[in-house]
Amino acid sequence: MNEPFSRRLTKAILAKQSVLVAGLDPNIANLPPDLCSRWFHQGGETFAAAAECILEFNKGLIEALSDVVVAVKPQLAFYECLGAPGMSALSQTISYAKQHSLLVIIDGKRNDIGSSMVGYADAYLGTTQVGGTRLAAFPADALTVNPYLGSDSIAPLVERAQLSGTGVFVLVKTSNPSGSEIQNLAVVDKKVYEIVGEHCHRWGLASRDSDGYSAVGAVVGATYPREAAALRKIMPHAYFLVPGFGAQGAGPADVVASFNADGLGAVVNSSRDIIFAFAKQGGSYQDAARGAAIHSRDIINKALLEGGKRAW
Amino acid sequence: MNEPFSRRLTKAILAKQSVLVAGLDPNIANLPPDLCSRWFHQGGETFAAAAECILEFNKGLIEALSDVVVAVKPQLAFYECLGAPGMSALSQTISYAKQHSLLVIIDGKRNDIGSSMVGYADAYLGTTQVGGTRLAAFPADALTVNPYLGSDSIAPLVERAQLSGTGVFVLVKTSNPSGSEIQNLAVVDKKVYEIVGEHCHRWGLASRDSDGYSAVGAVVGATYPREAAALRKIMPHAYFLVPGFGAQGAGPADVVASFNADGLGAVVNSSRDIIFAFAKQGGSYQDAARGAAIHSRDIINKALLEGGKRAW
Repeated sequence: MNEPFSRRLTKAILAKQSVLVAGLDPNIANLPPDLCSRWFHQGGETFAAAAECILEFNKGLIEALSDVVVAVKPQLAFYECLGAPGMSALSQTISYAKQHSLLVIIDGKRNDIGSSMVGYADAYLGTTQVGGTRLAAFPADALTVNPYLGSDSIAPLVERAQLSGTGVFVLVKTSNPSGSEIQNLAVVDKKVYEIVGEHCHRWGLASRDSDGYSAVGAVVGATYPREAAALRKIMPHAYFLVPGFGAQGAGPADVVASFNADGLGAVVNSSRDIIFAFAKQGGSYQDAARGAAIHSRDIINKALLEGGKRAW
Repeated sequence: MNEPFSRRLTKAILAKQSVLVAGLDPNIANLPPDLCSRWFHQGGETFAAAAECILEFNKGLIEALSDVVVAVKPQLAFYECLGAPGMSALSQTISYAKQHSLLVIIDGKRNDIGSSMVGYADAYLGTTQVGGTRLAAFPADALTVNPYLGSDSIAPLVERAQLSGTGVFVLVKTSNPSGSEIQNLAVVDKKVYEIVGEHCHRWGLASRDSDGYSAVGAVVGATYPREAAALRKIMPHAYFLVPGFGAQGAGPADVVASFNADGLGAVVNSSRDIIFAFAKQGGSYQDAARGAAIHSRDIINKALLEGGKRAW
């Protein structure tokens, strides 16, 4: 059995002195034009060529970032929109990231009930029974999930996560403006996102590891630091996955509230600012991505130190 | 441009005298054993063989059901758990269903923001730009979506739906027991699901067709008929996709509240009771599925008639 996800994440943070996650959102429209041209010239303007193109792009990023970030976070939409070849590129991206000692957090925001949710668990946090064999489709270390369907939708995934040493990140307070339409509705003296946070806390208790963290994490947008501080208290044992840093407007000071006093309990995602840095800075996309990631890692570490939250 | 989805759905209901949708949830563990054995014998216990197996199963169901149901609803988890070959089977299932004059509602419960949601729209409700070409990955007629991220997450999809004559079904009140943990929270004098319903109503207004229905539908569980009646009033222009009938416990009388007085405005999904009917009844899986679908269609039509809601 794998070590618990939270423990593996903590180890990676301490080893790399980084809490940064790089989002692998290979929007084909934004990739380096010469890279695309080369594949389209070779394979035509097909999904197969596009999938080879995003796979090469991802591999280059993984090589450039493997010692700077603790995990990569493929956003599934950008693979699904390239059909089955895109999903094949996802599978190969996961393998390549693991070979380069990166954790893989699949950003799929999946949600369903019963056997369907078991299907998603099979797909992303384990293996699928095929005849007498168990096969891995997209074996990641963690998956983002949406809580709108409640406990019985999350339970099959948490169960699987515990068995396989993987984790889930439940959307609690998302980074986008309209998230508040549902998430900030007031239920007597609480907000919906706080109630979701309380559920997450309970969902995670049974999987709490000796390091204090559980298999049930939370997505908490850096764009809402006050809410993050409240959620940090509600979910002391949850690792937070923090989007919204950089392109979406949150700065390094905004992520501090998502961390515990031990300087752990959160990782910060940045996607476009890293992977498409070449478009602003020129040079190779790998060098640009590495430079952007080092910069982000360092300003976050500095903010944690200044906020009294960098014990490591 | 396609006709609007709601109009195409209404036409199918009137032509087939049926409001039934068959869920294509090809859980490999539940498929006819002889069908699986044949493919595993031929291709080994691989994802490729499993994908051929579910594709053959789906094709058989589509042939058996095409005049009895208005749409098929593939549940994505059961394709994703078979890796890229599973997604290829999905793509071929969609084509086959369309060739047999069936609408395809993808049950993916997708949710995200900005360019990621555009990616999902490309994947399921349109085409993806690949170089100078636009290619279709999984071109369905409608997609289920989760509203937890609010308006700005839904907007890109609704925009695409309007352009391509497709539709979305927003999860409003789901059929599972724990859905109430979030969906039934009380916000002053309303429940969260009612507020989500109000949002859906607004999201759909601009796409309202001459037939009165919009591109923004709602998932409303048959297991909660009282809530369905309330939502019917809040969303007069929305087509409801009604799960929970059959295996999940709701009977034909429970679905009536989801319909408008014109006998339209809803379709009722049944998955396991149809596609795995062979396991209870013996015989070929196609005959069993067809028999179960005809039975479901008829008892729903009878309930609509008795409830004064079958104008057609």
